[in-house]
Amino acid sequence: MRMRFDPPTDPAAYQFVHRLRVRFADTDAMGVVHHAAYLLYLEEGRVELLRAVGAPYDVLRQHGVDLPVLEAALRYLQPLRFDEVVEVGARATQIRRTTFQVDYLLRSGGVTRATAVTVHGVIDDTGRPVRMPATLRATLEAAAGSPAATS
Amino acid sequence: MRMRFDPPTDPAAYQFVHRLRVRFADTDAMGVVHHAAYLLYLEEGRVELLRAVGAPYDVLRQHGVDLPVLEAALRYLQPLRFDEVVEVGARATQIRRTTFQVDYLLRSGGVTRATAVTVHGVIDDTGRPVRMPATLRATLEAAAGSPAATS
Amino acid sequence: MRMRFDPPTDPAAYQFVHRLRVRFADTDAMGVVHHAAYLLYLEEGRVELLRAVGAPYDVLRQHGVDLPVLEAALRYLQPLRFDEVVEVGARATQIRRTTFQVDYLLRSGGVTRATAVTVHGVIDDTGRPVRMPATLRATLEAAAGSPAATS
Amino acid sequence: MRMRFDPPTDPAAYQFVHRLRVRFADTDAMGVVHHAAYLLYLEEGRVELLRAVGAPYDVLRQHGVDLPVLEAALRYLQPLRFDEVVEVGARATQIRRTTFQVDYLLRSGGVTRATAVTVHGVIDDTGRPVRMPATLRATLEAAAGSPAATS
Repeated sequence: MRMRFDPPTDPAAYQFVHRLRVRFADTDAMGVVHHAAYLLYLEEGRVELLRAVGAPYDVLRQHGVDLPVLEAALRYLQPLRFDEVVEVGARATQIRRTTFQVDYLLRSGGVTRATAVTVHGVIDDTGRPVRMPATLRATLEAAAGSPAATS
Repeated sequence: MRMRFDPPTDPAAYQFVHRLRVRFADTDAMGVVHHAAYLLYLEEGRVELLRAVGAPYDVLRQHGVDLPVLEAALRYLQPLRFDEVVEVGARATQIRRTTFQVDYLLRSGGVTRATAVTVHGVIDDTGRPVRMPATLRATLEAAAGSPAATS
Repeated sequence: MRMRFDPPTDPAAYQFVHRLRVRFADTDAMGVVHHAAYLLYLEEGRVELLRAVGAPYDVLRQHGVDLPVLEAALRYLQPLRFDEVVEVGARATQIRRTTFQVDYLLRSGGVTRATAVTVHGVIDDTGRPVRMPATLRATLEAAAGSPAATS
Repeated sequence: MRMRFDPPTDPAAYQFVHRLRVRFADTDAMGVVHHAAYLLYLEEGRVELLRAVGAPYDVLRQHGVDLPVLEAALRYLQPLRFDEVVEVGARATQIRRTTFQVDYLLRSGGVTRATAVTVHGVIDDTGRPVRMPATLRATLEAAAGSPAATS
């Protein structure tokens, strides 16, 4: 794995937070949110993070750039239940020539429910890996909070 | 609605049956299969019906033809539970110039769990509605069991 | 089918509207929202409608009352795409002793994308159908806009 | 993370393989299987692994034992497409007092598409972590191929 799994558990480490509400369809017969639904929450948070920093995902796709998930890892700490409001903290990190990482912190009611990391590549519209466009890189570095967070 | 909702509840009316098993992810906090998962079962049954009659859906798509869902209706009679094996009966009917209907009967353990109908259009790869290709029409009519079933 | 499928296409007929944004995961290889995802949008709209009229679904469930979907029907008019904001209009109607109906109008960018109807029963925590509690009935009738809308 | 992410990429390392077919609903607007759907494939493979070794998941649940996912990690190597048949190799490993790990290898057409790991706890029907029942432990160790694979 290319990933470094050490997403901060301190909410203050995340400059961006997206709120969403658990759907009934996300639950399973254990009475809690199914573990696969968390990936949808991460994606929703990531899309909103990109929008917030000025690189909306649909604009990227219109420019022939896509950001496929290369790796994903999740740590489930406390279950989520129907109708709870989840705060998805997200931050870009590990920004490299062709890949970057996003760290996530999922909290609800002041309690950490999960942490997660996704690693993304950059591909063109033929599906081939390409270098990250300079504007995207600059945007992600801004989202990462400081150049020092990058490498 | 273009649809005629009268899918037979007699299993003998369905020449084609596809078997699938309920996934845990399909359940919800009521302890039974979530109502949206049934549409996935219908789709899986429809794809296998098309394969069985010689019009595999991926081949249709390679020929620039797609079969979007125009209408869908479901009647939920008895809940489905995790790990149950579902028999999805499917049959083409109401075959017209640009649309056709599929009737469904979902059974498990000898008990009817749901009936359903979907109506499909035919579009080309620009997304515009087109007449049904003659070969597809012939295939569906064969799947419908008899020319009398069409109009 | 118990349902009466005639959801108004005039937005003014819906006193309640819930906004949501299409997730990337909701799309399929046709490049548009998969037809099954619409049932999730209806559910999210219905949950918010119940909350808005003072009968939050999780409170109903805590009181041992559940509202299973007995029937569902959808008419897909124009596709939805990733990142579009959808306005889900919802209104209770056809309120009877043990069942009620919800009509839906899905619009985005001022264009109707789909109409839909769900029919719900009322069950207790043993799964048996029961009469609708008087408070729920009163709430739904209020949500329906006028007693004349009920029967 | 408790997990050790080193699932073998040699198919021979997996004594158990489950086959499934990609649903159209699993795809997204990139034209390939959405990354969240892989967790559903892992779950389906895991359920069949448990059945194959004599510890069917629904029987475990009837005995008041559940196996929640504590951690999950996936590495996406080559995309999967609609209608492809996926071979999900699964093997239990890292079997401890209260947790165990499952390694996965996803292949199609002779090409590795993804590797993955999930870590599971054991809880009773009140949701509290418990020691693994001896019979489950013995079963998993058998599934792991040899006692040497455990610790």
